[in-house]
Amino acid sequence: MIGIRSAALALLLTLAVAAAATPGARAEGPRPDWEFSTDQAFDSASIPAYAGRHDAVYARIDADLDAHLAHLQRWVRQRSISAQDDGIREMAELVAGDLRDLGFRDVALVETPGHPGVFGHYDAGAERTLVVYMMYDVQPVEENWRIADPFAGELVEHEIGTVLMARGATNQKGPQRAFLNALDAIIQEHGTLPVNLYVIAEGEEELGSPNFGAVIEPYLDRLRAADGAFFPMNIQEPDGDASLNLGVKGIIYFELESKGGEWGGPAKAEVHGSLKAMVDSPALRLVQAIASMSTPDGNTILVPGYYDAVRAPSDEEQRLVNGLALRADDAAMQKALGVSQWIGGMHGREAIIRNLFDPTLNIDGIWSGYTGEGMKTILPHMATAKIDSRLPPGLEPDEAYRMIREHLDAGGFEDIELSRLSGYPAASTPVDAPLVRAAIGVFNRYGANPRVAPWLAGSAPFYQFTRTLGLPFVFGGLGHGAGAHAPDEYMLIRPAEGVKAAGLAEIEKSYVDLLYALSEASSE
Amino acid sequence: MIGIRSAALALLLTLAVAAAATPGARAEGPRPDWEFSTDQAFDSASIPAYAGRHDAVYARIDADLDAHLAHLQRWVRQRSISAQDDGIREMAELVAGDLRDLGFRDVALVETPGHPGVFGHYDAGAERTLVVYMMYDVQPVEENWRIADPFAGELVEHEIGTVLMARGATNQKGPQRAFLNALDAIIQEHGTLPVNLYVIAEGEEELGSPNFGAVIEPYLDRLRAADGAFFPMNIQEPDGDASLNLGVKGIIYFELESKGGEWGGPAKAEVHGSLKAMVDSPALRLVQAIASMSTPDGNTILVPGYYDAVRAPSDEEQRLVNGLALRADDAAMQKALGVSQWIGGMHGREAIIRNLFDPTLNIDGIWSGYTGEGMKTILPHMATAKIDSRLPPGLEPDEAYRMIREHLDAGGFEDIELSRLSGYPAASTPVDAPLVRAAIGVFNRYGANPRVAPWLAGSAPFYQFTRTLGLPFVFGGLGHGAGAHAPDEYMLIRPAEGVKAAGLAEIEKSYVDLLYALSEASSE
Repeated sequence: MIGIRSAALALLLTLAVAAAATPGARAEGPRPDWEFSTDQAFDSASIPAYAGRHDAVYARIDADLDAHLAHLQRWVRQRSISAQDDGIREMAELVAGDLRDLGFRDVALVETPGHPGVFGHYDAGAERTLVVYMMYDVQPVEENWRIADPFAGELVEHEIGTVLMARGATNQKGPQRAFLNALDAIIQEHGTLPVNLYVIAEGEEELGSPNFGAVIEPYLDRLRAADGAFFPMNIQEPDGDASLNLGVKGIIYFELESKGGEWGGPAKAEVHGSLKAMVDSPALRLVQAIASMSTPDGNTILVPGYYDAVRAPSDEEQRLVNGLALRADDAAMQKALGVSQWIGGMHGREAIIRNLFDPTLNIDGIWSGYTGEGMKTILPHMATAKIDSRLPPGLEPDEAYRMIREHLDAGGFEDIELSRLSGYPAASTPVDAPLVRAAIGVFNRYGANPRVAPWLAGSAPFYQFTRTLGLPFVFGGLGHGAGAHAPDEYMLIRPAEGVKAAGLAEIEKSYVDLLYALSEASSE
Repeated sequence: MIGIRSAALALLLTLAVAAAATPGARAEGPRPDWEFSTDQAFDSASIPAYAGRHDAVYARIDADLDAHLAHLQRWVRQRSISAQDDGIREMAELVAGDLRDLGFRDVALVETPGHPGVFGHYDAGAERTLVVYMMYDVQPVEENWRIADPFAGELVEHEIGTVLMARGATNQKGPQRAFLNALDAIIQEHGTLPVNLYVIAEGEEELGSPNFGAVIEPYLDRLRAADGAFFPMNIQEPDGDASLNLGVKGIIYFELESKGGEWGGPAKAEVHGSLKAMVDSPALRLVQAIASMSTPDGNTILVPGYYDAVRAPSDEEQRLVNGLALRADDAAMQKALGVSQWIGGMHGREAIIRNLFDPTLNIDGIWSGYTGEGMKTILPHMATAKIDSRLPPGLEPDEAYRMIREHLDAGGFEDIELSRLSGYPAASTPVDAPLVRAAIGVFNRYGANPRVAPWLAGSAPFYQFTRTLGLPFVFGGLGHGAGAHAPDEYMLIRPAEGVKAAGLAEIEKSYVDLLYALSEASSE
């Protein structure tokens, strides 16, 4: 997924900012001034902690914990680097085999134009059905790990406790196999599960899920009949804090490229820099085109219509934002990011509103010409920028692309090529969905009383659940990990004294509780 | 030198554009509309061909040609790559030794903070004195030469004749040693030279001549008393065409860098791209700052005062421009450059005027963030651009830097760092200087009837001759070479049938004539 890379990041993105009582974001050019109609604040403590007890299953988890940990190690030891097509099919087969061992039926590898998906169905004859999303691929391995082999499945003593240090430990093999361990414990004790399950796994999440639509396509009717979808994820900090995000922003990610051609500029290769008086510069055109899309401070988008499409905050979203503002600490977040201040010195609720309800326009990369030491005097024949724009609910990817193209054309930049690399809409789930209430209830039971955000400022193609399948979708869970997409990735297995994040046993117990809580939830 | 890299390029830069009769450049924003007061056109054929005959010297050159060629080979076989400090001192000693052998006195290596210069004085007891500038360093060697060793001094059969193919063959060892060969022939026949000579050589021309001031500093009084300065250079095309440029534009070359800091933005490292709604983007700030310096088409500079400082074309410069317009071919130049059209479709005299009298602002390079394949969603913490601006006479480097800094500050871009990499003013010599008339007369004698431009659109620190020393300065001469700063560099030695560019013998004879023509010129 693009944008939601680790629980730590997810936390940062919604940890947001002190409780100043600014009434709303300032109007600044075309940006809307979202006036809030309510000062009520959502508090996750208002949802009762899950009270059910499943002691036999908990005891089974405690008894089998070594074997459960060995399952996690078996998963991380199987390489599955999607970008390098390394171990992919072996990992898909491993997931499929584990599902069969648990009693899943219709287990199949789902062929796509890319890496295969994995499907499995556990029919418990239950009233409710949960779709469990998994990703079985991992990122490539960086060079500077402190352990010799990121695929050894090594246990390492860390200041927060014993951790499983491995590529994929927390993103996402660890929490996913922990979820299957919970299923195993329930089935061992009770012979079946309290809910029916579909597992749908993909092997291209780290590539941006280009073929996930093809993975779910054969099962659309079955999946749409479910009651919700869930993505197991470690989202606790070591102190036990957790942030539950009920959605994501959408994204468009594109390249803009200016090249010499019929309009002017050098078409084949760079020319001497002194020719600028007679020859158009593709690099300057690209810079001018990008500059035309925002105010001189780079912070307000000038593409006509871009802000108009954003949906106003609903009452529920206002209450969630008000709740976030009560618990946020902008100084801590700024320190963690190495940022002196937010844009324009804003803070408090205003910053949260902008973070969640503003579309963005961001340069991820730009390059042209000579980038080495010292001087080389050339007029480069091409220039390229990678740009992403985050889309709050209401701003659709195709519309965003259309508005940007029309803006460029209207500004005389018809020659600038726009290449789409990605694009999908936002996703969000109401806080009063039974699945969400069940998840919060379980968090509360373990004292994790989560911050709840209407969505994350980051992006992931979760519209496949909320829109394609029409399901409430929760991504998260107890547990702590770090280092997704970085060296020394780990998942906390046995917390040290004083560390409040859940260890493996407690994570698995909370998954047990989640399934029972969902099965027991009243139909609304 | 920055911007004048080969005779071929010099030709391109002034070959310019068809003879359309547009009265002057359009006024466009702050750009001045240079109305010409004369339609008279300078024609180099109006200067009489040099008529003196020095048959004994010519015969000596013909007789010694094999030995003369061996001198060129000896020079190119001595490595002298300034950027890699490879062979530098050995080459300086070689030049000094050759000067001593010819009878130069006070020959010395001139120590500088960088590579040493070489000085020598030939006192012929003559009325006139010429300063001869030389560069003894060469560019690094590219990988894809067609010959095994670019320092072997190999003769290669080329479609235009026999060429010396070697690093430094044409830039500038070949023409420089050919000049010394001419001196040798005169001295052999007549015992002395018709003019006094100072040779002043540097070993850092390919580094931008950072210490040339230190090379001439000990000799300033002696050099200022000379009558002119000369830089031997092959400037003919194979068909015999030649362009004589009487000066160069100045240049400033700088980096602009935006980094996160107190003003905002990430200060230490990139952050996640989704944070753009709260975090300022250094990359967008850099793009906005650069964009603020020109119109949206990138072709008119908006830095206040930038065009005002440019000196209006003098009557002489107008005549030169009119003369260039009569002989120019914009289609051929565009084809050679791979450019479909000049800016805005301009052509003819208008393009020549803009090329020579417009300051430029050009992006040589720009980079920030992720520049690899596919998508990475980051908000980079820094962004950098390399920018050069060519300065016509009147626009001084310090003023240009001051205006750009003030423009950035006035636009709110105080946090953008500007790092100066280079800066020097334009240089030009009047067409009626005796040295220039002597040079044109010699060209005319060999049927090369040159195009004459007031200056080149490229840049070199020739202000050291025209301003520091206060001398007329001519850079050029008969002969053809190609591949400066590129693989397969060569100098034409024996032209094939039908090729009209001078071979080595004729080049040397023309240098003989130049020295005599200068000695015979009437004092004006």
